[in-house]
Amino acid sequence: MRKSVAGRLKNALALSYQQNHRRWFLSSSHSRFFSSSPPVLDSAASTSMANSSSSPSPSPLTLQTINPKVVRSSVTALHFQVLKCEYAVRGEIVTLAQRLQEELQKNPGSHPFDEILYCNIGNPQSLGQQPITFFREVLALCDHPAILDKSETQGLFSADAIERAWQILDQIPGRATGAYSHSQGIKGLRDAIAAGIEARDGYPANPNDIFLTDGASPAVHMMMQLLIRSEKDGILCPIPQYPLYSASIALHGGTLVPYYLDEASGWGLETFELKKQLEAAKSKGISVRALVVINPGNPTGQVLAEGNQRDIVEFCKQEGLVLLADEVYQENVYVPDKEFHSFKKVSRSMGYGEEDIALVSFQSVSKGYYGECGKRGGYMEVTGFSADIREQIYKVASVNLCSNISGQILASLVMSPPKVGDESYESYRAERDGILSSLARRAKTLEDAFNNLEGITCNKAEGAMYLFPCINLPQKAIKAAEAAKTAPDAFYAHRLLNATGIVFVPGSGFGQVPGTWHFRCTILPQEDKIPAIVSRLTDFHKGFMDEFRD
Amino acid sequence: MRKSVAGRLKNALALSYQQNHRRWFLSSSHSRFFSSSPPVLDSAASTSMANSSSSPSPSPLTLQTINPKVVRSSVTALHFQVLKCEYAVRGEIVTLAQRLQEELQKNPGSHPFDEILYCNIGNPQSLGQQPITFFREVLALCDHPAILDKSETQGLFSADAIERAWQILDQIPGRATGAYSHSQGIKGLRDAIAAGIEARDGYPANPNDIFLTDGASPAVHMMMQLLIRSEKDGILCPIPQYPLYSASIALHGGTLVPYYLDEASGWGLETFELKKQLEAAKSKGISVRALVVINPGNPTGQVLAEGNQRDIVEFCKQEGLVLLADEVYQENVYVPDKEFHSFKKVSRSMGYGEEDIALVSFQSVSKGYYGECGKRGGYMEVTGFSADIREQIYKVASVNLCSNISGQILASLVMSPPKVGDESYESYRAERDGILSSLARRAKTLEDAFNNLEGITCNKAEGAMYLFPCINLPQKAIKAAEAAKTAPDAFYAHRLLNATGIVFVPGSGFGQVPGTWHFRCTILPQEDKIPAIVSRLTDFHKGFMDEFRD
Repeated sequence: MRKSVAGRLKNALALSYQQNHRRWFLSSSHSRFFSSSPPVLDSAASTSMANSSSSPSPSPLTLQTINPKVVRSSVTALHFQVLKCEYAVRGEIVTLAQRLQEELQKNPGSHPFDEILYCNIGNPQSLGQQPITFFREVLALCDHPAILDKSETQGLFSADAIERAWQILDQIPGRATGAYSHSQGIKGLRDAIAAGIEARDGYPANPNDIFLTDGASPAVHMMMQLLIRSEKDGILCPIPQYPLYSASIALHGGTLVPYYLDEASGWGLETFELKKQLEAAKSKGISVRALVVINPGNPTGQVLAEGNQRDIVEFCKQEGLVLLADEVYQENVYVPDKEFHSFKKVSRSMGYGEEDIALVSFQSVSKGYYGECGKRGGYMEVTGFSADIREQIYKVASVNLCSNISGQILASLVMSPPKVGDESYESYRAERDGILSSLARRAKTLEDAFNNLEGITCNKAEGAMYLFPCINLPQKAIKAAEAAKTAPDAFYAHRLLNATGIVFVPGSGFGQVPGTWHFRCTILPQEDKIPAIVSRLTDFHKGFMDEFRD
Repeated sequence: MRKSVAGRLKNALALSYQQNHRRWFLSSSHSRFFSSSPPVLDSAASTSMANSSSSPSPSPLTLQTINPKVVRSSVTALHFQVLKCEYAVRGEIVTLAQRLQEELQKNPGSHPFDEILYCNIGNPQSLGQQPITFFREVLALCDHPAILDKSETQGLFSADAIERAWQILDQIPGRATGAYSHSQGIKGLRDAIAAGIEARDGYPANPNDIFLTDGASPAVHMMMQLLIRSEKDGILCPIPQYPLYSASIALHGGTLVPYYLDEASGWGLETFELKKQLEAAKSKGISVRALVVINPGNPTGQVLAEGNQRDIVEFCKQEGLVLLADEVYQENVYVPDKEFHSFKKVSRSMGYGEEDIALVSFQSVSKGYYGECGKRGGYMEVTGFSADIREQIYKVASVNLCSNISGQILASLVMSPPKVGDESYESYRAERDGILSSLARRAKTLEDAFNNLEGITCNKAEGAMYLFPCINLPQKAIKAAEAAKTAPDAFYAHRLLNATGIVFVPGSGFGQVPGTWHFRCTILPQEDKIPAIVSRLTDFHKGFMDEFRD
């Protein structure tokens, strides 16, 4: 942060924002988060009801009779854009982008740009990132083991991929990759993951603590399902946050208790703020059950310092909170002065064991340098829970029988990639390092570009896949947004998209300090597209600021 | 049914069953299902609480503070065995089986059998069923497209598999099988599925009605989440039922409204019974929102007659219920006089369109002749809902971003398998027909074997993968079960397992008319194992009946 946002943050905590017929108020204790029936819900619901009752609705399921938690699930964060928070990273603005893309295909030249530049979602392979060859070789061989001992296979696949496929198949009962597995995942694969965690942390990991899941999202849902009994149960969540958390808390009927990351200190996480929000929630009768930490941060891109992590662990221990550690970006660190430390490693290094801290670490194959979003693999490592609670976690896991086996295999592979001396090692290392170093360059280029723009400040993307720049919009632009019945950050993002084809997600999709405006920009477009993004953004921004200068 | 069970069913509707300290009562309107706090829950909860409070529990999450819906999720069906209904198909008895298997491995000869014969779960490939070659070829090629144009690939893969892989990759934006897809699934794959549904039914299908999911279970959860607002919302479910339904209703906080399948008429589904249960629920203030039908039946194996289906559609239309049609066994029909008809086809053939009936059809790649359980693919086809409700379904789908792409591809493949003239067609047909005809033989052999046993009657497995024989246990055995603090059917199943290595699931895991006892037996063990199962079962049963003869 080059310009101080802190003062603005402090002063902006009471905001009234009028938009069309909606008006809402945020007190300094952010009471909307605690309210089980936020006024914006009533407003939204009544609008929708009016719509649905005016058209003939033969269905026994209508917006009047649907589970209100579903309708409400999108309105737990700060601004009206969050009415569609689930859509934030692939929502309204993406729908518009897709329409523009179709128009360009049908009628080239119909817009002042020749392609859509998607910076909205952490989906690397959709933007041309290639999968890691070794991982895909093993997956293909496990899908069709009949070719494993054919001579042609030697010419098509690396020797260690063939060997690894055999090893994995031998760990699967009957070598049946088409069978349901144990509800926690195949034991041999959990062994490999536990060994990978041990190698990463230097502390023991137990394969029986691993629950393999279809990506990290179902794991988060499982924990929310276990933790939340009613709207009186609260979950401490960072703001800004990845909307999975607000949605999951709302769908399970709980209350999101926000704590604000400090933009001025590079999205720092202060235990002072945690304590303040915890007390505020308690005073409203909310029983706070868990703390969500996303490290490296999404959408904020910071990497927590180890000292900061120790404070968080201590806070959870003292307050008796479950620590839900979203560590899906653990491989994505781009700055030399920061390093990823798992919360398990940090708590063990403090001398805290199973008896001291209840900790869930989420990991996913969708992120890292591999970015295998479509494979839906992931796991959670669950430590510090009693046997009876573990049994309940297992029960919830078993309702869906098991996660997909390819995703399970891939989760084991990313935690035990090729080693020095393996046939694939050099090519694997080149692919991995090529992706990570390119991501680091892209992050730096985009960060610098943002910081060169009038009224925009942007923290470093130390890790993860995102930048979350703050934009100080002129009052005239804010008024124009009001007139257009949209939030100011969404107004900017729409104008940007229509003018340049660049897709950013408005900050209101993630939550932000009231009165501040941001957008999330991924660092994922291929490197040869970055200069075009920078120059189009720069030109657009200059024109926008000139148009709306106060 | 050769012996009439009907009288017993009618008379048994008031039952008091004492077991250890637990006692519960079932009135003729089955009020336990409607109770949001069944007495068995209180009993179970207090037992568990006592356990957990006696051991030091450092965790902020304890059985006292966990979401009670999770604890309760296993106690919504009829008998105490259902305390662990989620474990029914892979639960307590399977844990015992696995222990015995380990003992056999360590110490051959330690038990009076040399292997465990798993008949507990519909997981064909775990018992040696081989995957369909064409499907796996395509999956492997889509996993590792880099080999698609290598010359060795021609020698390893069939030409139409290579061609199909290209086709599928061309339907995926950027050919990126590692990218998140549209939250409903890849459009081109939904097109193929819709075409498959059209070919099956002779009525149009819309790709925008298809939601691809990680198996059928998440689709069922999604619909329950949308339908259930509180414990005052009821879902009509068959008894016996697949425990996914009882668990999902409980986890979402609703009430299971049971209707009994009529064992005497081959597990028939009578609208008289539906009406009776609907009225009984209404009189208790329950708002019934949907009707679950499993066709072909699980655990009951019946295939509904078309006339019966028409009655059900008419009932749903008249009562304004969403029809949730579990049609995952649509390919598994074994008798010449029955045929699968989708509920969509039936309702369209009655002249009912989108305006008349709200219908969700669930399909899965885990069943059929392919049995690809580990791939976690499936879809629901959602028709008859208004646009605003569709938007809410989409929102719930988008919380988890998308289902796994391999599962999506496989779902499209099972709905568009090789056709006459394709290179793979003959081998594909031979594999498919070989599996289905073998399943039919196994079903008949097991059915006959059961019906040859004293006190056992068994309906035909017309479809699906299960037999659900009724066992008339001697009073002496029932008393012995009471003394052993277990349900009589579980008592029998445990004795059977310990004596023979055969694993059946007690009927109490699925629900059954009180006072009747059943077990579920899959027809999936490989054909060469069937004679051993029949002879071991027969010997055991004779000995058991002799031991406990009244």
